[in-house]
Amino acid sequence: MPGYSDRLNSRIQLLKTSALVGLDPRWDWLPDEITRSATAAGGTPLEIQARAFEAFSCSIIDVVASLVPAVKPQVAFFEQLGPVGMTALYHVMHYARKAGLIVIADAKRGDIGSTASAYADAWLAGESPDAAPYPADALTINAYLGKDTLQPFVDAAVAKGAGLYVLVRTSNLGAAVFQDRETAGEKLFETVADVVQGLNAEFWPGESYGGVGAVVGATWPQELSDLRARMPNTPLLVPGYGSQGGTAADVAGAFDAHGLGAVINSSRGINFAFRREDLADQFGPKNWRDAIAAATHEMIADLRNHTPTVA
Amino acid sequence: MPGYSDRLNSRIQLLKTSALVGLDPRWDWLPDEITRSATAAGGTPLEIQARAFEAFSCSIIDVVASLVPAVKPQVAFFEQLGPVGMTALYHVMHYARKAGLIVIADAKRGDIGSTASAYADAWLAGESPDAAPYPADALTINAYLGKDTLQPFVDAAVAKGAGLYVLVRTSNLGAAVFQDRETAGEKLFETVADVVQGLNAEFWPGESYGGVGAVVGATWPQELSDLRARMPNTPLLVPGYGSQGGTAADVAGAFDAHGLGAVINSSRGINFAFRREDLADQFGPKNWRDAIAAATHEMIADLRNHTPTVA
Repeated sequence: MPGYSDRLNSRIQLLKTSALVGLDPRWDWLPDEITRSATAAGGTPLEIQARAFEAFSCSIIDVVASLVPAVKPQVAFFEQLGPVGMTALYHVMHYARKAGLIVIADAKRGDIGSTASAYADAWLAGESPDAAPYPADALTINAYLGKDTLQPFVDAAVAKGAGLYVLVRTSNLGAAVFQDRETAGEKLFETVADVVQGLNAEFWPGESYGGVGAVVGATWPQELSDLRARMPNTPLLVPGYGSQGGTAADVAGAFDAHGLGAVINSSRGINFAFRREDLADQFGPKNWRDAIAAATHEMIADLRNHTPTVA
Repeated sequence: MPGYSDRLNSRIQLLKTSALVGLDPRWDWLPDEITRSATAAGGTPLEIQARAFEAFSCSIIDVVASLVPAVKPQVAFFEQLGPVGMTALYHVMHYARKAGLIVIADAKRGDIGSTASAYADAWLAGESPDAAPYPADALTINAYLGKDTLQPFVDAAVAKGAGLYVLVRTSNLGAAVFQDRETAGEKLFETVADVVQGLNAEFWPGESYGGVGAVVGATWPQELSDLRARMPNTPLLVPGYGSQGGTAADVAGAFDAHGLGAVINSSRGINFAFRREDLADQFGPKNWRDAIAAATHEMIADLRNHTPTVA
């Protein structure tokens, strides 16, 4: 069965882009049309918001499914609405899978032993979305608890042809405080990176890219290209492009010579493109979907102009 | 409004114990009575399991509510069942709050900026459980992403009188791989501990214990007493007692001279006490609740015999 990286790379090669669209619904920024319709249907405030988040996320999926290989729902925004939010997330994830998109659940989970296995069971569906509590192709995870705590996730990824992205060097300003702590000339994030690369070498031997990816922020271009070289068989997930300040030139180092090896995420820049002054002027409030499409095309073109061409 | 540590310490002083009961339902180990009744009510496999997890967890709450100050639902086991599992978790948490228990959601969340705020909104209810998506008094969180990523959680804890427990030194065998990496004579977990203690000093000045706790495994007795001294205003959550091998003597160093400053968790040892040979013989399969009560009393007595007396 084709592994996660093979499936992802097929989509990237088909669409000639590694743009990843985050799904980050926030009530205060939603189009009026969405909030009005969700409110009219009634219910508790959490039910109304969950309905709006689902409708908004599915609208984004409608726009981007033929343009980008993958979407990345931010689980926190759905979790914030309680159980009804998780039901909405479930529907959004299934909707994305049915549209042919790869779905990366950005949940940043991490725990030990059987608890880590439970999180892996919750999220990793691989090629069998209908069997999963939440049908993700891949999941972001946190390695602070130790290498042994990654193993249950890796076992599940191998068994299901699913993917993982371990937090290595995050995009926030304060990432360095712990992640850059140096021991014997090696930074913590480099140690984590070596563990990740080692897992790919061990569990996906002979493959260009294994099932364990790494999250590395676009806001750290030097670290990004160093890590690309340090983890040759590790697919990267690069947040921080756009709203967080990373440019297409900043992320160029994330790719291999064939234009593979990374997906570049934009969330706010795509989701709320209709609130960007120039696009708001161009499309008006009713045509918010067109603004989202325009921002997606713009990102794809920007990446094409500044990063290696997909072979 | 009384903060998290004040509310927790009141319960500890009332019941004269710092025993914390984890709620870790696992389908294969549930009492026959629970699985049979959940199955008879019909539905999908996930719905049946969620119904069983809720009934089992609420039964444990019935047994322990008058004995221990707090319970700690392990979110992963509910998340594993998809949205219906989260609905069950919600009901379990409310049931525990109504029974007067402090509820610590063991979710180990962590993210940056507004996403961290969303997780804090999801879980931290403080004294107003009805307003929260999930009504936790406190939440476990992961600091790998950086000190700046703790701030949204701290802001929410201050505003709501809620608590946090930052993963410092976890109970798993492989915890040392990253957590013990030494930089300029200081281990990573010590650096994290200093950040945690600093937050208590800054945001809960003058209080014996602030709102930001630390998770430190019972499996590392030396680190535990070192960290107690290093973080004088930080409440500890100590997993690893019982099934994971930590003894009451191992956790004695977690307490201050007044017998406060820590809660000691047991999950499997309490939840599945009726599967322990001696208790199974004593009570028989039908009286599994009595086995859970016996194991809880045993843990409380064990802690009383080997740790400082609660003043």
